[in-house]
Amino acid sequence: MLHTILDEALSPWMKESDLDHRIVLSSRIRLARNFKGIPFTNRGDISDLTKVDGYMRSMITPLQTVYGKSFSKINLESLSAVERDVLVEKHLISPNLATPSSGRSVIISEDSRISIMVNEEDHLRIQSMELGLQLEKAYERAIAIDDVIESKYDYAFSKEFGYLTACPTNVGTGMRASVMVHVPALSMTGKLQRIIRSIIRMGYSVRGLYGEGSEGLGHVYQISNQQTMGISEQATIEQLSQIIQGVVKEEEKARAELWTTDKEGIEDKVWRSYGILTHARRISGEEALALLSDVQLGIDMKLIDVTMNFHEMLVITRPNFLAKLVGKESMGTQERDSQRAQVIRDTLLRGLKGGKS
Amino acid sequence: MLHTILDEALSPWMKESDLDHRIVLSSRIRLARNFKGIPFTNRGDISDLTKVDGYMRSMITPLQTVYGKSFSKINLESLSAVERDVLVEKHLISPNLATPSSGRSVIISEDSRISIMVNEEDHLRIQSMELGLQLEKAYERAIAIDDVIESKYDYAFSKEFGYLTACPTNVGTGMRASVMVHVPALSMTGKLQRIIRSIIRMGYSVRGLYGEGSEGLGHVYQISNQQTMGISEQATIEQLSQIIQGVVKEEEKARAELWTTDKEGIEDKVWRSYGILTHARRISGEEALALLSDVQLGIDMKLIDVTMNFHEMLVITRPNFLAKLVGKESMGTQERDSQRAQVIRDTLLRGLKGGKS
Repeated sequence: MLHTILDEALSPWMKESDLDHRIVLSSRIRLARNFKGIPFTNRGDISDLTKVDGYMRSMITPLQTVYGKSFSKINLESLSAVERDVLVEKHLISPNLATPSSGRSVIISEDSRISIMVNEEDHLRIQSMELGLQLEKAYERAIAIDDVIESKYDYAFSKEFGYLTACPTNVGTGMRASVMVHVPALSMTGKLQRIIRSIIRMGYSVRGLYGEGSEGLGHVYQISNQQTMGISEQATIEQLSQIIQGVVKEEEKARAELWTTDKEGIEDKVWRSYGILTHARRISGEEALALLSDVQLGIDMKLIDVTMNFHEMLVITRPNFLAKLVGKESMGTQERDSQRAQVIRDTLLRGLKGGKS
Repeated sequence: MLHTILDEALSPWMKESDLDHRIVLSSRIRLARNFKGIPFTNRGDISDLTKVDGYMRSMITPLQTVYGKSFSKINLESLSAVERDVLVEKHLISPNLATPSSGRSVIISEDSRISIMVNEEDHLRIQSMELGLQLEKAYERAIAIDDVIESKYDYAFSKEFGYLTACPTNVGTGMRASVMVHVPALSMTGKLQRIIRSIIRMGYSVRGLYGEGSEGLGHVYQISNQQTMGISEQATIEQLSQIIQGVVKEEEKARAELWTTDKEGIEDKVWRSYGILTHARRISGEEALALLSDVQLGIDMKLIDVTMNFHEMLVITRPNFLAKLVGKESMGTQERDSQRAQVIRDTLLRGLKGGKS
């Protein structure tokens, strides 16, 4: 199973296609939990970490029963640096968990939808992902996992504050709800900054595809709650869902505007991007994302008849996934750029429907 | 026949393929001639122009006999402005002859290789074209045409000066020998300007694809002699041929240098240009030429396996040819750019050999 996780760009859960995932790419719920009576990871000694690890080892079977799919426990020390970074690129573990340190592992469900980081900043980070805007569903799955663990071991919980976490910003619900959106038209029509500012003003954070500092890349943004105290999980999910619905509406308006103002101009942009992606011999990650975003917009707007899985493309363009693909621990920029160009060509041309251009 | 000339981008003579036309696209000889006893065109009255026209009408049959192909005489007043401009874009007449004025015509051989402008600045401008570097052959054909006319009518000729022409810059041989070269690698490696300066220093002119002011477009240049007095036709042709051979050698060196320095970089550039050309929905003439030049370089360097006739592409990207194609007298920039993009896509995809990319 580890091989599938590391080698395939598309996680099994991403292959569902009963939903329309235009604009909203995915929803994610992450719960921070710590066991009662064991120091937080950064304060604990090796015996504490081992104890947490032992708890979770004993949970594998109950987890399988409640989720109905098998789970694998992967010891991060057994992986190479590149392999660890691939898990980060696939959003299965945090960059924090990828830094070398003993006692750390991740428990991943067969379909890669559920991942539980063990001995990260908190003892547990339970993560559940869904395609499109489905925070409620992701939350239900995370809570089912959470409940089965809590039924066996006590969590550090205060009646006054809620769940106790290593970092005070997570105390309370310990929940981070995140939605990934693709908003190229808002960006092209110059409306994005105003919308981002108003979301931040409501107490939510807006980061780029790969977290802080990656703003603008591929016109993909992650919008998450900041507040974990004084507001229930349900209220947070409801509020964030409303914000996202607002973003979707604005993006749709902007797309309609582009269509009305200069349909051929957008068509030209989309086809050119597709032409470059299917022909370039070298491409940087940043350029690739910009062009892939154009193609996805073209697919959404039915301007271009090609098959592409944007989620897959977001993973295969990443440095570590590329390095893993050719079995290298490190690659020069030029080698990576040509590897990236080849993988993109192969993937897009494989997805080519009969009648092109 | 007029229809074929106006509607098809590729003149029949361009379809020969027994020669390698990399770098040197074509050779052209143009002879300026005036009949004895008739004032130059700009000084002559309508009866003078009619007399010249009558002479040339009587020459059609002898021309056919000597060249072995039929000729058509096209009265320029019978053409629309767009049709006249298409003849200019195909280098069959000069821009001068395309300006509306009575008594002007052009006599064109069935294969469009020979054209004789009647009542341009001079009574006659006899033009002969060849693919590649074949000035000698083009000259022989022009002289055969010239001889058959001279055998029937006397030219204005001075023992001291040679052929007399309306503009003193043509007096003497009355010959303008021109070679069209495609030198993208010299341009990319920054060596072109030095070479152009040295050619000019030798008394030859270097102009862009469409004459003065079009320098750099598609990396195509026309190199021609300036001097028509004190040097024989043979010597001019020999000297110009040597200059061109020097340019070819330098361009080949520059291509080898590009290959050695960064083959993949050139490959990337060439494929990207091809990708854009086969996918864009709107393209300006200038961008199209730059990208077509890249593709031609890729074909020459065997980096890309596609079929393209550069001569054809140089014609189909021109405004008037595009207007004629859709049957319009004038087009807006945007309409023209999208028409150009479509014609380029259709033409390139038609020439697509099985295994692409």
